[in-house]
Amino acid sequence: MKILILHGVNLGMFGRRDKTHYGSATLEEINDALKNLATALGCEIEIFQTDYEGEMVKAIHDALDPQISGVVINAGAWTHYSYAIADALAILTCPVVEVHMSRVFDREEFRRKSVLAQVASGVIAGFGPDSYLLGLRAVHSLASREAAG
Amino acid sequence: MKILILHGVNLGMFGRRDKTHYGSATLEEINDALKNLATALGCEIEIFQTDYEGEMVKAIHDALDPQISGVVINAGAWTHYSYAIADALAILTCPVVEVHMSRVFDREEFRRKSVLAQVASGVIAGFGPDSYLLGLRAVHSLASREAAG
Amino acid sequence: MKILILHGVNLGMFGRRDKTHYGSATLEEINDALKNLATALGCEIEIFQTDYEGEMVKAIHDALDPQISGVVINAGAWTHYSYAIADALAILTCPVVEVHMSRVFDREEFRRKSVLAQVASGVIAGFGPDSYLLGLRAVHSLASREAAG
Amino acid sequence: MKILILHGVNLGMFGRRDKTHYGSATLEEINDALKNLATALGCEIEIFQTDYEGEMVKAIHDALDPQISGVVINAGAWTHYSYAIADALAILTCPVVEVHMSRVFDREEFRRKSVLAQVASGVIAGFGPDSYLLGLRAVHSLASREAAG
Amino acid sequence: MKILILHGVNLGMFGRRDKTHYGSATLEEINDALKNLATALGCEIEIFQTDYEGEMVKAIHDALDPQISGVVINAGAWTHYSYAIADALAILTCPVVEVHMSRVFDREEFRRKSVLAQVASGVIAGFGPDSYLLGLRAVHSLASREAAG
Amino acid sequence: MKILILHGVNLGMFGRRDKTHYGSATLEEINDALKNLATALGCEIEIFQTDYEGEMVKAIHDALDPQISGVVINAGAWTHYSYAIADALAILTCPVVEVHMSRVFDREEFRRKSVLAQVASGVIAGFGPDSYLLGLRAVHSLASREAAG
Amino acid sequence: MKILILHGVNLGMFGRRDKTHYGSATLEEINDALKNLATALGCEIEIFQTDYEGEMVKAIHDALDPQISGVVINAGAWTHYSYAIADALAILTCPVVEVHMSRVFDREEFRRKSVLAQVASGVIAGFGPDSYLLGLRAVHSLASREAAG
Amino acid sequence: MKILILHGVNLGMFGRRDKTHYGSATLEEINDALKNLATALGCEIEIFQTDYEGEMVKAIHDALDPQISGVVINAGAWTHYSYAIADALAILTCPVVEVHMSRVFDREEFRRKSVLAQVASGVIAGFGPDSYLLGLRAVHSLASREAAG
Amino acid sequence: MKILILHGVNLGMFGRRDKTHYGSATLEEINDALKNLATALGCEIEIFQTDYEGEMVKAIHDALDPQISGVVINAGAWTHYSYAIADALAILTCPVVEVHMSRVFDREEFRRKSVLAQVASGVIAGFGPDSYLLGLRAVHSLASREAAG
Amino acid sequence: MKILILHGVNLGMFGRRDKTHYGSATLEEINDALKNLATALGCEIEIFQTDYEGEMVKAIHDALDPQISGVVINAGAWTHYSYAIADALAILTCPVVEVHMSRVFDREEFRRKSVLAQVASGVIAGFGPDSYLLGLRAVHSLASREAAG
Amino acid sequence: MKILILHGVNLGMFGRRDKTHYGSATLEEINDALKNLATALGCEIEIFQTDYEGEMVKAIHDALDPQISGVVINAGAWTHYSYAIADALAILTCPVVEVHMSRVFDREEFRRKSVLAQVASGVIAGFGPDSYLLGLRAVHSLASREAAG
Amino acid sequence: MKILILHGVNLGMFGRRDKTHYGSATLEEINDALKNLATALGCEIEIFQTDYEGEMVKAIHDALDPQISGVVINAGAWTHYSYAIADALAILTCPVVEVHMSRVFDREEFRRKSVLAQVASGVIAGFGPDSYLLGLRAVHSLASREAAG
Repeated sequence: MKILILHGVNLGMFGRRDKTHYGSATLEEINDALKNLATALGCEIEIFQTDYEGEMVKAIHDALDPQISGVVINAGAWTHYSYAIADALAILTCPVVEVHMSRVFDREEFRRKSVLAQVASGVIAGFGPDSYLLGLRAVHSLASREAAG
Repeated sequence: MKILILHGVNLGMFGRRDKTHYGSATLEEINDALKNLATALGCEIEIFQTDYEGEMVKAIHDALDPQISGVVINAGAWTHYSYAIADALAILTCPVVEVHMSRVFDREEFRRKSVLAQVASGVIAGFGPDSYLLGLRAVHSLASREAAG
Repeated sequence: MKILILHGVNLGMFGRRDKTHYGSATLEEINDALKNLATALGCEIEIFQTDYEGEMVKAIHDALDPQISGVVINAGAWTHYSYAIADALAILTCPVVEVHMSRVFDREEFRRKSVLAQVASGVIAGFGPDSYLLGLRAVHSLASREAAG
Repeated sequence: MKILILHGVNLGMFGRRDKTHYGSATLEEINDALKNLATALGCEIEIFQTDYEGEMVKAIHDALDPQISGVVINAGAWTHYSYAIADALAILTCPVVEVHMSRVFDREEFRRKSVLAQVASGVIAGFGPDSYLLGLRAVHSLASREAAG
Repeated sequence: MKILILHGVNLGMFGRRDKTHYGSATLEEINDALKNLATALGCEIEIFQTDYEGEMVKAIHDALDPQISGVVINAGAWTHYSYAIADALAILTCPVVEVHMSRVFDREEFRRKSVLAQVASGVIAGFGPDSYLLGLRAVHSLASREAAG
Repeated sequence: MKILILHGVNLGMFGRRDKTHYGSATLEEINDALKNLATALGCEIEIFQTDYEGEMVKAIHDALDPQISGVVINAGAWTHYSYAIADALAILTCPVVEVHMSRVFDREEFRRKSVLAQVASGVIAGFGPDSYLLGLRAVHSLASREAAG
Repeated sequence: MKILILHGVNLGMFGRRDKTHYGSATLEEINDALKNLATALGCEIEIFQTDYEGEMVKAIHDALDPQISGVVINAGAWTHYSYAIADALAILTCPVVEVHMSRVFDREEFRRKSVLAQVASGVIAGFGPDSYLLGLRAVHSLASREAAG
Repeated sequence: MKILILHGVNLGMFGRRDKTHYGSATLEEINDALKNLATALGCEIEIFQTDYEGEMVKAIHDALDPQISGVVINAGAWTHYSYAIADALAILTCPVVEVHMSRVFDREEFRRKSVLAQVASGVIAGFGPDSYLLGLRAVHSLASREAAG
Repeated sequence: MKILILHGVNLGMFGRRDKTHYGSATLEEINDALKNLATALGCEIEIFQTDYEGEMVKAIHDALDPQISGVVINAGAWTHYSYAIADALAILTCPVVEVHMSRVFDREEFRRKSVLAQVASGVIAGFGPDSYLLGLRAVHSLASREAAG
Repeated sequence: MKILILHGVNLGMFGRRDKTHYGSATLEEINDALKNLATALGCEIEIFQTDYEGEMVKAIHDALDPQISGVVINAGAWTHYSYAIADALAILTCPVVEVHMSRVFDREEFRRKSVLAQVASGVIAGFGPDSYLLGLRAVHSLASREAAG
Repeated sequence: MKILILHGVNLGMFGRRDKTHYGSATLEEINDALKNLATALGCEIEIFQTDYEGEMVKAIHDALDPQISGVVINAGAWTHYSYAIADALAILTCPVVEVHMSRVFDREEFRRKSVLAQVASGVIAGFGPDSYLLGLRAVHSLASREAAG
Repeated sequence: MKILILHGVNLGMFGRRDKTHYGSATLEEINDALKNLATALGCEIEIFQTDYEGEMVKAIHDALDPQISGVVINAGAWTHYSYAIADALAILTCPVVEVHMSRVFDREEFRRKSVLAQVASGVIAGFGPDSYLLGLRAVHSLASREAAG
């Protein structure tokens, strides 16, 4: 089973952004923790980061590949306005989990709205790097059930 | 380490509510799954369900007990208007995780607003009974880190 | 056939509240009129009043009892914010009729909004004690048709 | 005692409209049921349907005739914007009951607002053809009390 | 010089409507006062009342007749929603004055909005029957200036 | 195949209205162009204009006649408030196309909202008289497919 | 009989402001026209202009003097925010007429709202200098009737 | 003279809540200060705290007892949504004073709205424990005047 | 200790304003009661009334004088829009108490909003002249504590 | 004459998206139909699809080329937020037609708003692939008239 | 060339206000810096500060003097509500630059709205005392270009 | 000292866009003026333009390079929705100045909102090409002060 991990705009800068909201872990450290958990869960993961909305859309299109069993996505600031990414996710048939490091619901007004939420299976927010790990567990569990289904 | 699991109003009726949003698991089955996971994580859990806002507030006050290391709460419909429960949670110093079975962000307008979100450490929504299990993992991880200091 | 009549918060005070909106009939007089009509319609009624939201929720849960063929509810001020009661009513499969003594649509802003309306079969408002009698007739007629199938 | 029954725009098409909301009864069948109930209640009814707002306004003006003791009105789509009909009803001194076949409060946004509600004595909605029968009972009861004085 | 006086929906009922807002003058008395003032000003007036929006629209179209030098209109409740009448008035090239008997700005919310105001030369409101007389003076003055060129 | 062309309120005045938005074509010229296109497409058209909402509603009811295969409607200012016309159109089962001469989305606020849009199959706006011709083509194509279907 | 004419902020600059909205008459010319009309009506007028809100408030307080039978006020931009002036006017017992030179209802959003309208007897807007003359006539007529009482 | 002091939800936790807004005084200390002031004013007080809305409603009903001359209430978070408590207070005929420890008008959005304010005689907010003392003085003074008649 | 009492716009007219909201006490009587209370509390007061926003702003600037230990302000209608006065108050370091005679929260919409509330230490409203006395007590108590420090 | 056809984000996935709204035609089939119609109309078309907003902006800049006589654009989800594309289109001087396959006005809230509508000559929505064909006809007709101009 | 520098309400208190937003420079120091820059640019400046809206309005009227070539204005809190000052500025024909010391767009809600912005040539905000210097440069450059014609 | 100048989407088209708002200067001419001013100020500038949001985000990331002392950005239409660019700017520690050629606050509704304003040190708008020059001066001055530190 292969799970796709998608990191959106500015997320390559983790560790350099406002530490109150994002902590000090770098993207590399997060990715390593994800790989370890994947091994523990017995699944494969593929990781992709981009600052281009167009590349993110294409990466999502590619997840139509039947080999991909689920998607974990942190779309960064796109979460709040990119209906293009929402439409791309809506084409997928595998489970999609939206994750956020910070407590998006307790920050600026605009961060409380997610245009992706309506197309995601579920949302996990506020646990720092753990949001990703919980997201991987969640999608793995959904995908396993579908596979068993 | 002891974690408090709080089920709010109408949640004793799981299995009898609209199955599209809540699935067919009963509260008992969810509690059993939580107990199994607690054993696996090596922590204790205490479970409480009430349909009275006043009892819920008191149960939260009781969590000031230093033996309680974290709280997982699904406040049901109170999520959307009970500032009393929000104020009670705000008194706690241990981590609090808000969980929802259904994709609250994709249902009626009023369900998209949580008056608890600003006092919770994090939110997990949309994974059915798994939301509780992910919530227990999340709060266990936060509490372990605090304990480790 | 048994119909459940539910009186919500403050409604035990009828006859003592603002007479312009509620008239001078007491709850007892209203209940007597309901009993008379029930006899005339050839059905039984069960009457319950509470000032506790939690008790009201439980009374609604109890109406899942197949012996209850319909519910007439005046939730009083809860009408305007108790999503908990709305969720409880949504679990029921028998017809539910929402009644109001006063012309709720012609008073303060907040009274024009009913969070119950989306789960009730129908609404009757503005006829004083007659609202209850019309509500009993309405639910009796709906329940008879369902029984007739 | 004479009661005026007013059917507004498009209501001559009952039985041909969306059956989920309006059922399959024709206007003729509804009128027959009203006549039967009128006979049972010992009152006369006069029935009028029009698709012209101007004719509806005039019909309401005519209800100033002291022979008319009450009005039951289903204004159809005019309910949601015709302040002209609301102003006409406001001139009347006899009781006016607003009825709706469908659960107007649970459909499209615009149907949740009634510009007539502020001038009607009461509102009954959601019971299909029974809404009319309950409305006739309600207005008959109000008019009888006024007559009794 | 000929001025058109247009009375809209329900305005034939003056003297029978809520006297707090409309006083006790009948439409006939208002029309007589207008005729007297017209004589004093040395102009002719033509008066028209209708409860049909379509007839009002046509009466406005007819005012394209070069013999009509100005229009005084009290559109009654249509003021608040009939974009059809607003569009008809917009076709005219002679001055149009909107009048209201009551202080529309100090009553129900919906009466504070006029969809005609953007197409009228000016507005006069709150003076009872005098609103019409001031309106006739105003339009006469505007038309005289246009005639003088 | 017969297509019904419906022109709403004030549209008989084309050529006399604000030329910036409506151009200088008269309704007659538009109708002639429609007839020519109908001939080219091999279908019949029936044309109706009215300034009475009630007549428009009735004309739409008449389109239930199985001989009518489609409707092109420009409801003029009614587009923005006549829920009566929207409800009438909703009864039809043949395709309905809403057309506008002007770029309604780029004018006054109120013109940006169409209460008909939810019941029309499609919308065409901004092309002057061509909006009608494109509308006829569109409804002809939809109706042909249904006939073939 | 004495009428007070109050000119608010910036109104001493008439003739120098945007001529599209205010025309080219100077305040002096407007005052002369008012004096002529006062003579014709057989009443006295007192005229006051100020750019200080505090002075305007005091001038209104002074109108409690029983010698003042009515007030015509154009408060200029204060119309849209000075609740202080509205409160001052509310103390008066004589009639107050609010006038505007321009079509305030057809300009920028903020000009459509008058905080004075709720305390004025009536409003006249859109007739340039004639607004003042119509306002003087209106208040003279109201005051005469009160005097005749 | 007897005054009722009502403490709402979570208020038993004073001294443990966010000290920036609530200071460090415990409820017991506040009650002692109230008792001292009551003695000084020569009146009796009765104190009640509950976390149950239903109990609060009943306690308010009990204040219909003619022995109770006034009520001081801090409803805590219920202030912002419990129309049930507002309706209960509206039944009382003695003076009711709403108090808040914190500057509710300068905190989160939801705290700026009080659903009780429309039924209270007056409001005192922002003075910490002194809010209660000022509230007792205020209600004592109102009740004394009523007693004096 | 010296306390500054500031009366804003129109407040010199107490006793002449709408008695339902303001009672019949004159400003002089209120000031006398304040002086008596000041003597009882053992502090000095300085009283200032103005109808000029500019003078009020300057009077507040003058309160930077270390001799002034606190401010009681009733800004009248300025309460609802004068950000200038709010900014002036924000410069002060001594306690500021906002008072209102009437129940501002239960009157017109605009009176429910105070632009001063965010810079005042506390608010007291609804007690007529007693609001001032409670305000003086409140600010005296705050200032004494600061002095005691 | 050359017409540019622009397909925006996700539109390369037609045939794989939600078939209720988009039908089953692929982009290739739509392009073929467009080419056939172009041949019939005697004009050339150039087709471009991209998932990158930046590439779309550049493609629009390139349409300043005098050889391009018109543009048909379906911007997909960008329609609802890309002011960048709107600004690019605003630079063009040739006619631009906005097309949508689905009835955008009858889907999720956000799809009802087009940020492009103010810069397009006209809009066509709801006809599936036919929307493109009607759009090509519309822009061809506008461009021919300009060329004839 | 002479430039007018206008400082509004409370701005004489610079150096005493909240230093986070306004820094510690006094108005005198800012004026000195402006004079130095004026000398460097080879122009004259005239500086005026007032806490009276009326005086500010008059000072703006005086700038109609052809000797004044431009205006730099920081209206302080008036920026957010004084339509009177906006109307005064609108009369001017020379360039007007609005400046703010603080980042008005990142503070309280009300500070984000400027009622002056629509009448100013440009806005400069967020640079502390430098905002004035940049404003002087900006208006000098605009005025020079106008002078050069 | 090196300053980064960032030009966003469509800004390479200056001189070809609507001249009322943007004037006729080309981007090249603006860049030349910036270079001249940089020389005069004794600093270096680096200029970058892109129509790709992703490239702009990366260019901002690159400004973390300690050699860059400040940023001047005109993000074009992205200003109004790209939270991605706002988040990127928020990572920077050097001063950032937002500039606009046109008076963004006086154009279409959407242009009045800047999602960047909360992360910029200051904003300059409305001076055409001079906005850039003032922006360079502003950021140079801020950076010099920081360097001087």
